[in-house]
Amino acid sequence: MIDESMPSEHIPDGYVHGYTEREHARLVDQATTLTDLLHHDTRYPLGTSVLEAGCGVGAQTVTLARNSPGARFTCIDVSPRSLEAALARVRAGQIENVTFQQADILDLPFPEESFDHVFVCFVLEHLPLPRQALVSLRSRLKPGGTLTVIEGDHGSTFFHPDDADARRAIDCLVTLQARAGGDALIGRQVFPLLAQAELRDVEVSPRMVYVDSSRPEWVEGFTRNTFTAMVEGVREQALAAGLVDAATWARGIAGLQRAVGPDGVFCYTFFKGVGVR
Amino acid sequence: MIDESMPSEHIPDGYVHGYTEREHARLVDQATTLTDLLHHDTRYPLGTSVLEAGCGVGAQTVTLARNSPGARFTCIDVSPRSLEAALARVRAGQIENVTFQQADILDLPFPEESFDHVFVCFVLEHLPLPRQALVSLRSRLKPGGTLTVIEGDHGSTFFHPDDADARRAIDCLVTLQARAGGDALIGRQVFPLLAQAELRDVEVSPRMVYVDSSRPEWVEGFTRNTFTAMVEGVREQALAAGLVDAATWARGIAGLQRAVGPDGVFCYTFFKGVGVR
Repeated sequence: MIDESMPSEHIPDGYVHGYTEREHARLVDQATTLTDLLHHDTRYPLGTSVLEAGCGVGAQTVTLARNSPGARFTCIDVSPRSLEAALARVRAGQIENVTFQQADILDLPFPEESFDHVFVCFVLEHLPLPRQALVSLRSRLKPGGTLTVIEGDHGSTFFHPDDADARRAIDCLVTLQARAGGDALIGRQVFPLLAQAELRDVEVSPRMVYVDSSRPEWVEGFTRNTFTAMVEGVREQALAAGLVDAATWARGIAGLQRAVGPDGVFCYTFFKGVGVR
Repeated sequence: MIDESMPSEHIPDGYVHGYTEREHARLVDQATTLTDLLHHDTRYPLGTSVLEAGCGVGAQTVTLARNSPGARFTCIDVSPRSLEAALARVRAGQIENVTFQQADILDLPFPEESFDHVFVCFVLEHLPLPRQALVSLRSRLKPGGTLTVIEGDHGSTFFHPDDADARRAIDCLVTLQARAGGDALIGRQVFPLLAQAELRDVEVSPRMVYVDSSRPEWVEGFTRNTFTAMVEGVREQALAAGLVDAATWARGIAGLQRAVGPDGVFCYTFFKGVGVR
């Protein structure tokens, strides 16, 4: 659901070498951007090969590759058009440790045990068979390699002032995504999905975006320009599908907008899971 | 909502002196009990006076007083019966830095600027006038003193597998609490409440309890024996109030019980806020 609408912090060279568990914890506490919150603890060692499955237009690819400059990334997507956009983005960022390839997660053109690590972000939510996708990806991992999954969960959303119409507007997204074969409540399922795909030592951590008016950059960057914009973006679809009437929809959007006022609060949770083959 | 059903970790003597920001972050990451998650970053210095408002039966008092052995706590509650239980608990724990007093938060028997710090946990959710309570408590703080609030938020609950009847059972708690003059969605309001009561430098952090089957002690201690038990506890009230029928209620409880299965996941968020007079 996320593009690069949040400002990204510069990560100094050599940072990766000083990385420790304690540093990790400190960063969770101090995450200043969504990119920090989701990606700070993914660092792949020098010389490792990483498959990014479902890279889309490369929104995560740039962060991934910058954070692990010594790793080699193979980034796949089913859509040639998305891959073109991703390639342009990576070139614009002068990133050299990434190659792109058109491929389907359920029909991967790589032999078993090809990669040291696999990374999947905001992909499973769109797939009718997320568990099978993980099984397919796991088989391309070398034994001991990790599979990392990041997903949002629209059902984790709550806000103040609470508003039944705003909740209904969000429910429209969930319903539309289900009708398209996806699952907007997948974040909470990351643990069972990884476990069912026979990854071991699975660890999942929630990453809550908590926004109140003491954090104006998150009010703008996340609540307004990411989440509310995403909801507003499905208006026509929701009306056409008869999920809601125009008046309720308008009240719902107005309700979300109250959550960005001075007394407003907004909460949304992403989930990040890592399992080992 | 919480008593001491979660096991409490022993906190070694002298711990308070080694306390640092980094340690704080590490502890958030490693919280092994609900007490850790909520209380680890509340430590009052030697010689300070602290008012605990609404101590109830002393469930938090014991932790508070142990974590800050050099501070003096004055713990108040409106209920003499609760105070008796709290006194017994503190005596059983051989805690000596606590005194109890019967008092109403809106009619405090202390002069202005009496205390260095104020602490309120799981209290505002029960009050018809939470903002006024904070205004009253703020006035007893010395300038520069802190007011700390911890509250849960029943509307933050989500789980896998999702279940409409389980959500309905939880909604019954929210409705019953509202009818009793309280607000079970108060956690998300901690920031605006503190700001409206004219505390400054308000900082609120969410404390999510995330439970999957890799954390069996939380499955038992929180999802089953704390949260689900709390919901089950209002069955008669919910049925008597006509909020739900018995069959729906039974399905709702069964739904919550599925969230403690091997593929189940459960999420609940507490909010902790600190403001300065």
